[in-house]
Amino acid sequence: MSPERAELSARLFADASADGVPSHGLNRFPLFVSCIERGLVDVCATPECVASFGGLERWNGRRGPGNLSAHHCMDRAIELSRAHGIGAVALAQTNHWMRGGAYGWQAADAGVVGICWTNTLPNLPPWGSTSPRIGNNPLVIGVPRTGGHVVLDMAMSQFSYGALSVHRMRGTELPVDGGYDEEGQLTRSPAAIERTKRLLPIGFWKGSALSIILDMIATLLSGGRATHEITPVVADETGQSQVFLAIDPSQLGAVDEVTSSVDRIIEDLHQAGEDVRYPGERTLATRRQSLAEGVEVEPSIWAEAKALLARL
Amino acid sequence: MSPERAELSARLFADASADGVPSHGLNRFPLFVSCIERGLVDVCATPECVASFGGLERWNGRRGPGNLSAHHCMDRAIELSRAHGIGAVALAQTNHWMRGGAYGWQAADAGVVGICWTNTLPNLPPWGSTSPRIGNNPLVIGVPRTGGHVVLDMAMSQFSYGALSVHRMRGTELPVDGGYDEEGQLTRSPAAIERTKRLLPIGFWKGSALSIILDMIATLLSGGRATHEITPVVADETGQSQVFLAIDPSQLGAVDEVTSSVDRIIEDLHQAGEDVRYPGERTLATRRQSLAEGVEVEPSIWAEAKALLARL
Repeated sequence: MSPERAELSARLFADASADGVPSHGLNRFPLFVSCIERGLVDVCATPECVASFGGLERWNGRRGPGNLSAHHCMDRAIELSRAHGIGAVALAQTNHWMRGGAYGWQAADAGVVGICWTNTLPNLPPWGSTSPRIGNNPLVIGVPRTGGHVVLDMAMSQFSYGALSVHRMRGTELPVDGGYDEEGQLTRSPAAIERTKRLLPIGFWKGSALSIILDMIATLLSGGRATHEITPVVADETGQSQVFLAIDPSQLGAVDEVTSSVDRIIEDLHQAGEDVRYPGERTLATRRQSLAEGVEVEPSIWAEAKALLARL
Repeated sequence: MSPERAELSARLFADASADGVPSHGLNRFPLFVSCIERGLVDVCATPECVASFGGLERWNGRRGPGNLSAHHCMDRAIELSRAHGIGAVALAQTNHWMRGGAYGWQAADAGVVGICWTNTLPNLPPWGSTSPRIGNNPLVIGVPRTGGHVVLDMAMSQFSYGALSVHRMRGTELPVDGGYDEEGQLTRSPAAIERTKRLLPIGFWKGSALSIILDMIATLLSGGRATHEITPVVADETGQSQVFLAIDPSQLGAVDEVTSSVDRIIEDLHQAGEDVRYPGERTLATRRQSLAEGVEVEPSIWAEAKALLARL
């Protein structure tokens, strides 16, 4: 891996931990290294443009590092939006993009609206079924704002498997129903849901439908694999399909308008109560704390990362 | 209203009823007429392009009929996608678009992927608050398919006020929790939720966040009003902001791929169980039944429509 690519990949992992998403930051780094060692991720592979028309492009990730390819494709979508007002890049044959929110922040940092999503391996039962056949297909949306970007990063399941395990290990119940138990009843027990694998889509039938249609768009635009075709290879997912959209509002001559309209919405929202936050507000607070006081790490994972380094 | 525009508007109302969405079809027609009579909807006003760059345009709806302006802007986004691969139209100062799904079917009929959404008046409490300040901001996505398009049409609240009143009048509980009662407990009682106005966003904090960010994008791209600025005028909403995106997959030279990848996803989904449907599957079945056997109408609404006609 070239020093520049290694540097960017490291920054994306570190940023995720600094922003309060260690599950897709440092905690996932050992698995990322293991995927490289098992040949699932080709560190040398860079994405390649295979079709292009105006503001729309199709790229092949060639099984390279998922975070670098996603970053590259969002950059490309941003470039396309500078030229066409709006740009879209569909990416096939990539790998896990780690923390999806990163690409929303990236678009917002460039002053554009970014919308992106990925499919995943089958990990969520569609509405009406008990077996995991659809993906939790995270959707990320970034909106630029001078006072702090607005960034949504949400999967289509109410909770991730990571969130379930955190609650189980702490011995806490989920704050709301997160899936079904062995009797087919809605439950807040993380362990019961881990056993049934019947995670709940957000909004029941609605999140299920949104997951399905996001998978369809990613698959048809990229020419890559659908969720049901992402068969776990030695238990890990590889070969995902993704979409990156960017819209440049400055092309409408409306830069001041943008910030003021988003500010007005946030101002109204904050009047609704002190617990009401805009998407990304907590992330920014965590980031500021991390930059001031250092990034919190899980000691066991930190030891694992140091052991990986010692092997080099 | 010109005969062509009247014809299209009538078709959009009739299609909604034929497709099984009478709440935004015939049932809403008397309210639409009342909005015209009270000067909220200007039947003569057509949308006007006020800014344009490549595949991105900003239009002003000039308070014309919302269904006609939405249809016009999706048509324009489709045209832009033919020229640029992807197109986006943001529309300010419009009126209720009636049944949002119509514009997803419209895009899919044209062989393109369509994504559109609207803001609404404040009708949903943001997560962390008890007062309705955000909109239920319906999101519509259409994907073309030879064997029947895939179309998602979903609001950000688990149930609409229309759905609550249907359940209350029938004396049935909601199938899942739909909001909070007076004690702040989740409830399936439609009447309790109508009293508190504390509807539940899909996925709790997730649907709330998605609603907020969709409102921001619609507002900043269109230069129009945000949900909190859509003050009900004589109890009706007017002046919404909307976004219409179209992506033409044929520009990637992938028409056969498109149908086959979407077909493969549906085939896999149908193997998950006989109750599992893709978004739009039930709509198509209802449409076929309506075309074969006639469209079901509510007798009282039918009488009201005939009385309106007699007044002409």
